[in-house]
Amino acid sequence: MKKLLAEFFGTFWLVFGGCGSAIFAAAFPELGIGFAGVALAFGLTVLTMAFAVGHISGGHFNPAVSLGLWAGGRFPMKELPGYIIAQLIGAILAASALYLIVSGVDGFESVGGFASNGYGELSPGGYSLTSAFVAEFILTAFFLLVILGSTSDKAPKGFAPIAIGLSLTVIHLVCIPVTNTSVNPARSTSQALFAEGAYLSQVWLFWLAPIAGAIVAGVIGKFLYGNND
Amino acid sequence: MKKLLAEFFGTFWLVFGGCGSAIFAAAFPELGIGFAGVALAFGLTVLTMAFAVGHISGGHFNPAVSLGLWAGGRFPMKELPGYIIAQLIGAILAASALYLIVSGVDGFESVGGFASNGYGELSPGGYSLTSAFVAEFILTAFFLLVILGSTSDKAPKGFAPIAIGLSLTVIHLVCIPVTNTSVNPARSTSQALFAEGAYLSQVWLFWLAPIAGAIVAGVIGKFLYGNND
Amino acid sequence: MKKLLAEFFGTFWLVFGGCGSAIFAAAFPELGIGFAGVALAFGLTVLTMAFAVGHISGGHFNPAVSLGLWAGGRFPMKELPGYIIAQLIGAILAASALYLIVSGVDGFESVGGFASNGYGELSPGGYSLTSAFVAEFILTAFFLLVILGSTSDKAPKGFAPIAIGLSLTVIHLVCIPVTNTSVNPARSTSQALFAEGAYLSQVWLFWLAPIAGAIVAGVIGKFLYGNND
Amino acid sequence: MKKLLAEFFGTFWLVFGGCGSAIFAAAFPELGIGFAGVALAFGLTVLTMAFAVGHISGGHFNPAVSLGLWAGGRFPMKELPGYIIAQLIGAILAASALYLIVSGVDGFESVGGFASNGYGELSPGGYSLTSAFVAEFILTAFFLLVILGSTSDKAPKGFAPIAIGLSLTVIHLVCIPVTNTSVNPARSTSQALFAEGAYLSQVWLFWLAPIAGAIVAGVIGKFLYGNND
Repeated sequence: MKKLLAEFFGTFWLVFGGCGSAIFAAAFPELGIGFAGVALAFGLTVLTMAFAVGHISGGHFNPAVSLGLWAGGRFPMKELPGYIIAQLIGAILAASALYLIVSGVDGFESVGGFASNGYGELSPGGYSLTSAFVAEFILTAFFLLVILGSTSDKAPKGFAPIAIGLSLTVIHLVCIPVTNTSVNPARSTSQALFAEGAYLSQVWLFWLAPIAGAIVAGVIGKFLYGNND
Repeated sequence: MKKLLAEFFGTFWLVFGGCGSAIFAAAFPELGIGFAGVALAFGLTVLTMAFAVGHISGGHFNPAVSLGLWAGGRFPMKELPGYIIAQLIGAILAASALYLIVSGVDGFESVGGFASNGYGELSPGGYSLTSAFVAEFILTAFFLLVILGSTSDKAPKGFAPIAIGLSLTVIHLVCIPVTNTSVNPARSTSQALFAEGAYLSQVWLFWLAPIAGAIVAGVIGKFLYGNND
Repeated sequence: MKKLLAEFFGTFWLVFGGCGSAIFAAAFPELGIGFAGVALAFGLTVLTMAFAVGHISGGHFNPAVSLGLWAGGRFPMKELPGYIIAQLIGAILAASALYLIVSGVDGFESVGGFASNGYGELSPGGYSLTSAFVAEFILTAFFLLVILGSTSDKAPKGFAPIAIGLSLTVIHLVCIPVTNTSVNPARSTSQALFAEGAYLSQVWLFWLAPIAGAIVAGVIGKFLYGNND
Repeated sequence: MKKLLAEFFGTFWLVFGGCGSAIFAAAFPELGIGFAGVALAFGLTVLTMAFAVGHISGGHFNPAVSLGLWAGGRFPMKELPGYIIAQLIGAILAASALYLIVSGVDGFESVGGFASNGYGELSPGGYSLTSAFVAEFILTAFFLLVILGSTSDKAPKGFAPIAIGLSLTVIHLVCIPVTNTSVNPARSTSQALFAEGAYLSQVWLFWLAPIAGAIVAGVIGKFLYGNND
């Protein structure tokens, strides 16, 4: 139960902090934080919450991470459904809170893209479905390689949240123009539910590509790092 | 006594570094640091001072944090008044020093908003009272969840200042457009005392929302992390 | 074998994350990450992968680093060829993946400079061959001084990936205008292979200067830090 | 001897990385790193070199730091002259290298301010002598409070370079518009020697204010943290 609560709060924080910074602050006139600020926000939500609740739940905050850890032999299949549901609820409640806040802005008309992920016409920089799939696949795979490696027995103790969080920052520094960066199906789903536009019809890719990348990396990581158990 | 001095210096540093970067550097033509630089400055003041004096006073630097730690069973009620007074004095002296410096700029006429917090017409992005309350409540609650979790017995030792400081950076990356980001009643009060405009009449919200969020998180944290004592 | 795989993945990540952020995100209209975001991306690729696979291969991800460590008495000559080949393959495959993604952008015509390194007319800021050589020599030398020092016996345990990664961020904050920053012959070669323009004819400098700087620093480091073995 | 060499390299790195980023990259069209990037560069030079050579010399890289540590009872007076001379030589050689590189840029005419420190007409934002003195005094004092606190016996082991380096980042995020940020007489002297303009006539303030702030903080720190010996 504490594990599921930890995953709930962690994923809420990831979506509220990461997508919130994108929605409120990225394009603020003159002083906006831009993609770099958003990349920092996403990474630091994971860094901070992994220190706070990582010792309870492992600190996944992401269905692709849970599945990748399962593929890497680090997480039992029977805990998967509970974790993924807790992550989805956390993400959706965070998106609801963001909606509540943004709808209180002076002159509010629509949430627009609401920091959703997309490809083709819904890609920030106009990248194709193939480009989006390749980028999300590769980046989620490396996310899992960092997670599995930095938490393996021989890695320095205690530093994993730093490595994992800051790898999510790298991922966003690369990929926001391509897909607005998912690597996390919960984060993609929660935003698409509220967004204006056809984002929901593209959510399948942000389940498929991250999970495929995560599982491939899990298998590679099992060979490279061994099984901690 | 050393504890109160530590809280005094820590809160001085938070206000001088965080609000100072906003006042002097955020909107500097062409080269200004923007909201992202201010978010970094606030977070790093806490990260650095928590390493420097956290082992003396616990490193709160914020009345809402002291109250949240009390609600979480980590801080004795009898020390609350001293801590909060030391924090307020540190914040107000820091604001005085900032006033002294900024009044020496060529062509000085007024301090303007002086990095104060506000809602409605005084919100940087024009967010309503409700939006401001929700954002400050949620963000302070998560600030406390990170503080309580990263300093709990099972968290990696020594890393808490990194987690805590960088969570304050996330908070600012999200919330500067909404309220200019408080989550800290001392920081709101010190700036409103010097600012041009009706900021002082809105300070009540930046006591109420952060403290409410902190206390709720303290109770949740007690369940989630247990009581360290 | 695991060592070579670790170097392959690490160098892939360095090029995909560092050069990818430059290609996709640096100059994105209004919201682009600029040179500072690229500097952060390069540094954090090394920080994160050094935590993930540093305990397997040492985490070089760069032929100049391998040669500098050899000069400093920390790495056996017989392992040099395998490491350098694995690094080159990783870099080139990463550049291929970047090419695949960028060629799927709406209205794609050419990869342009593709984040390649150059001097004279191919320097971002128009710096001469001499300026480029001096900058690359000095910066790679200090990169090695940080690597050798932060991994020496008396340095704090576990922190080396932070020091090493963030020194690469400093290096990019200084040198992107001069040469687009190499300090890594594998990264220079992979990008020049795909770039439009005469970048390939300048790659020699980005082997010569970094390696010369690394070897000089290796010798200095041997005196300054002693030999760990 | 190794101590002096460590201080030489560390101060070279601080000036080459910090001032170099300001000179080459801060104002690069469209993609420049701005004051925030320069603040990051200065802080990370200290963070990285303190990990690399801190275990040899203590990692001062700054005459004001050496004097503040002496005032705090952490550094013997007899080592002061050697340290300060090594720091000055390192700073001046770094400035020479920067001069060599920047003079090779296409269309070079003058180094301009060369990242020098100044007040009044030479302040980036037009701040008065008094403002400059107050800012430099306060910021150097807090720099020393962080250094003395994060290296004191009860602080978490190994983290001091992170706290110290990132406090220098805060200092720059606040103070670049005021004085271009010194808090380091060696860094001010080296740049003023090469700069166009009357910077050399203002260097006295960047010895006086930082050293005064450092010594006051040393005395406070002795009371607050005790004497490590």
